[in-house]
Amino acid sequence: MLVLITYDVNTETDAGKRRLRHVAKQCVNYGQRVQNSVFECNMDAAKCREVKAILEGIIDKDVDSLRFYYLGNNYKNKVEHVGAKPGFDVMGTLIL
Amino acid sequence: MLVLITYDVNTETDAGKRRLRHVAKQCVNYGQRVQNSVFECNMDAAKCREVKAILEGIIDKDVDSLRFYYLGNNYKNKVEHVGAKPGFDVMGTLIL
Repeated sequence: MLVLITYDVNTETDAGKRRLRHVAKQCVNYGQRVQNSVFECNMDAAKCREVKAILEGIIDKDVDSLRFYYLGNNYKNKVEHVGAKPGFDVMGTLIL
Repeated sequence: MLVLITYDVNTETDAGKRRLRHVAKQCVNYGQRVQNSVFECNMDAAKCREVKAILEGIIDKDVDSLRFYYLGNNYKNKVEHVGAKPGFDVMGTLIL
């Protein structure tokens, strides 16, 4: 199933910047970065529980936010893109 | 139907910063800001075409990106949230 993971990490502190890097680094193990803070992950329920547990362990729940959107197996016509294609490398760094 | 709108706007230039503000300002007319660059919009197909046309007119398609995810009418169990709730006011400004 396709699971969309979106996140907002508060980067006002160095610790926040580290959390942001860690969240991105973990997400690339599970899916495709499509925008800066948006990953599309094609995975089963077990993998989904795994990545959720990992991300919940990284974020600061008082200031950071994670959202998961479950798009099911027939997701091809549920996603539309306009504009620039993502230029992110596999390590999650933005290629400018 | 619930439509998720996510965007990445390249803010390296002042024009980019303006585009980002304009995109956010338009999105708040159509839905609920749930993260910095993520809006959930409960709207019909006509409204959806309307906001898409507006946003496509604002972004620079060479450097900015828009994505639309169509979550249908039964979306309550398709969305999960972890961590901080969004603190955005209705004009799309982040309340810290």
